[in-house]
Amino acid sequence: MRQVAILGIGQIKVDEHWELSLRELGGNAAFAAMQDAGMDKVDALYVGNMLSPMVSGQNQLGTFLSDWIGLWDQESVKVEAACASGAAALRAGLMAVSAGEIDSALIVGVEKMTDKAGHDVTAALATAADADYEVEQGISFVGINALVMRRYMHEYGWKHEDFAPFSINAHANATHNPFARLHEKITVEKFEKSSMVATPINLLDASPTGDGAAAAIIVPAERVASLPGKPKITVAGSASATDSIAVHSRRDPLFLSAAYLSSKKAYEMANAGPQDIDIFELHDAFSIMSALSLEASGFAERGQGVKLGLEDQINPRGRVPICTRGGLKARGHPVGATGMYQIVEVVQQLRGECDKTQVDGARIGMAQNIGGSGATILTHILRAE
Amino acid sequence: MRQVAILGIGQIKVDEHWELSLRELGGNAAFAAMQDAGMDKVDALYVGNMLSPMVSGQNQLGTFLSDWIGLWDQESVKVEAACASGAAALRAGLMAVSAGEIDSALIVGVEKMTDKAGHDVTAALATAADADYEVEQGISFVGINALVMRRYMHEYGWKHEDFAPFSINAHANATHNPFARLHEKITVEKFEKSSMVATPINLLDASPTGDGAAAAIIVPAERVASLPGKPKITVAGSASATDSIAVHSRRDPLFLSAAYLSSKKAYEMANAGPQDIDIFELHDAFSIMSALSLEASGFAERGQGVKLGLEDQINPRGRVPICTRGGLKARGHPVGATGMYQIVEVVQQLRGECDKTQVDGARIGMAQNIGGSGATILTHILRAE
Repeated sequence: MRQVAILGIGQIKVDEHWELSLRELGGNAAFAAMQDAGMDKVDALYVGNMLSPMVSGQNQLGTFLSDWIGLWDQESVKVEAACASGAAALRAGLMAVSAGEIDSALIVGVEKMTDKAGHDVTAALATAADADYEVEQGISFVGINALVMRRYMHEYGWKHEDFAPFSINAHANATHNPFARLHEKITVEKFEKSSMVATPINLLDASPTGDGAAAAIIVPAERVASLPGKPKITVAGSASATDSIAVHSRRDPLFLSAAYLSSKKAYEMANAGPQDIDIFELHDAFSIMSALSLEASGFAERGQGVKLGLEDQINPRGRVPICTRGGLKARGHPVGATGMYQIVEVVQQLRGECDKTQVDGARIGMAQNIGGSGATILTHILRAE
Repeated sequence: MRQVAILGIGQIKVDEHWELSLRELGGNAAFAAMQDAGMDKVDALYVGNMLSPMVSGQNQLGTFLSDWIGLWDQESVKVEAACASGAAALRAGLMAVSAGEIDSALIVGVEKMTDKAGHDVTAALATAADADYEVEQGISFVGINALVMRRYMHEYGWKHEDFAPFSINAHANATHNPFARLHEKITVEKFEKSSMVATPINLLDASPTGDGAAAAIIVPAERVASLPGKPKITVAGSASATDSIAVHSRRDPLFLSAAYLSSKKAYEMANAGPQDIDIFELHDAFSIMSALSLEASGFAERGQGVKLGLEDQINPRGRVPICTRGGLKARGHPVGATGMYQIVEVVQQLRGECDKTQVDGARIGMAQNIGGSGATILTHILRAE
C-alpha cells in the first residue's frame, strides 16, 4: 500500500451563501485546493455530500462537480455516510491512490443547506438516523442526541453547565478563523441562558448548519518533497468503523464503539497513541459528542470527558487541544462537508498557519468524523515530516 | 495493485416487493452472496444506491445494511453515481482490496422503488439529470432520453421499429431468468403498438423500475483456486469515466464519450478488445442507449448500433450477445442495484449457469453501467480462468 500525502487544501467560509449554488460552493473549495497544490488537473474526484438529492434535487454529485470544475472525462463519484461523508470521500480517494490506480485525487466535501425554500432540512437530517425504528417514532436527530446527553448526565452525575467549556473553547477559537460561521465569544452564563432546542441540548450545545465546502488534493507520498517552511504532510492512519444505526440497539449508548475501533486502528497504522496527538479535530455536532469522542478515543476515562474541559485542557495551549479552528460548534457544520473541513484544519495546524490558535510544535494531528449518532465513524491521523 | 476475484454472487427477483423493506431487500441479496461464497464474515461493505434518501427517508445505507446483516464494527459506506451506483460501489470495493487495505468486501446494489406512498419516483429519478439546467426546464429523465433518440433517428435515418430487436431480445432472454421482472415475449407488432411515454420512447423502449438487490463478494485473486466445474473469475478490467451532466453541454449528444473512455481503459487493462468479449451486459435503460453503448464501446460504427439487432447478432448465439438475462428492459431496472445485477449475470454466464440463454464457451464478459444520460459510465471486464 503506497503512502499518501496531502498536497493542497482549500475551503470557503461556512455561511448562508445565498449567492452561491451547490456547484459554485464545491467548485470554489476545489479551485482553492488546486491552486494551493499548484495543480490544474487530477486523476479523479471524490465528493462527500449528504443532503443534495433531498435539498437541491441533485444526485450524481461527483460528475456534477467535475463537470463544473472542468475535469471532464475523469473518474468522479460521490460517497455518502451521513455527516461522515467528507471523511468517507477522503478514504475512498486514499484507497484508489494507495492501490496505484491513480496518481492524484481531489476530495471535496460540500453541502448546501440554506436558501432552499420548500425543503425541510430537519427532516433531511433525520435520514442519518434509522427511518424504520427511530424517525418513524417522530424523533428528530437533535432529539436522539438529547436522549444520549440526558442519560450521560444521569449516569455520571454531570450538570448541564459542565459542558460549557466545549462551546466556550470552540467559540473562542473560531474568532481567529476567517472561514468560521460564528465569530462571537461566549461565557458560562450565556451558555446556560441559551434557548432550549431539545432538553437538555440548548442552542449553544448544538452546532449551526450552513453552506460550506472544503477540499484537499492527495498524491503518492513519494512524489512530494518537503519544502522549506511547508512540511510534507502524510496520512499516517485512516480507518472506518460502524455501530448499529439506532442508538437503542447499542450495547452501551454512552460508548462510541465505532470511535474506539477506528481510532484504535488509526493509532496502530500511525504507530502512535493518544499521548502523541498534538491536536484533535473532533466531531462536536453536540457538546455531548465531544465528551464521548474524547473518551472512546483514549483521551479520557469513561464518563470523564467533560473533565478535560473543566480543567482547561482543551484549548490550543492545553494537553488535548480540540476544535482549534472553531469545531462544528463555531466554524459551523455543513454536514457532508464537515469531515473535509476537519482535514483542512489539521493540515493548517501542521503547517503552522493558525496564528493565535496555533498549537506550538504540532506534528501529529487527528480528525474524527461521525455519521449519525455514532453509527459511522472515521478517524484520520496526519503527520508533518 | 493486487488482482481481485469474484468469489460469490447473490440476487433477488426484481419485482414489486411490498413485503420486503429496504434492509430486507439488500440483506437477502447479501446473504445469498455470502452463502454462495461460503463466507459469514467480510472486512467491509460497499453499498450502491441512488434513491433511498428521497424514497425511503434513509441515508448512510452502508452502515444501515451492515447493521441488519450483522456485520457490526466493519467499515461500511454508500457510493452514489445515479443509475451507475452499483458498479461504482464495486469499484470502490475493488480499490480497497487492490490496495491491500482489506482482504474481502461485500458489494450490494439495492433499490426500493415501489410501495412508497407519497414519494414521486419520477421526480427522484430526475436528480440524475442537471437540476439547474435540465430539470428546472420541466423535463423528466425519460424526456431527455427521448430527445437523444429522436436526434439519432434524424441523423442516421432509422425508423422507430428498427429499435425493436433490442427489446425483443431482452424479453426473450428474460423468460429464462427467474430473477427477471418480466417474463413475456414480445413481437415487432407489439413493440410498435405500445403506449407512448415520451415521443419517440414508448413503453417497450423503456425499462421497468422495481425493487431489487444484487450482491457479490470480492477477494484477492491469489486467495482463490479454480475449483472443478466452477471457474475462478477475476476482474480483468475496471474503469470509470464521466461526461458533462447535461446532454446539451456535450460536443456530440449522440456519442457516449464516457463509455468510449471507460471501455477503452478496461480493454487495455484486460489486454482485450471488443472482438474478445463473449457477452456484453449493457445499460439498456432505453432502447436508444443500447445502440449508443454498442457504438461507443467498439462493437458498431457510429450510427450503426441498431444494425446489430436487425442482423440478429445480439442474441445468445449471435456475434455480440447482449442482455442475456433480460437486460434492464426485462430483468428490470432497480436503478442503484442495476450495476450489480449486471455483474452477477456476467458471472453466471462465465460459470455456465444460464441454461437456454447460455453463451457457448463464454470466457470473457463485459458489464457497462450508466449514470444519468451518459454522464457517469463504468465498464468492468470479467474473465474466467
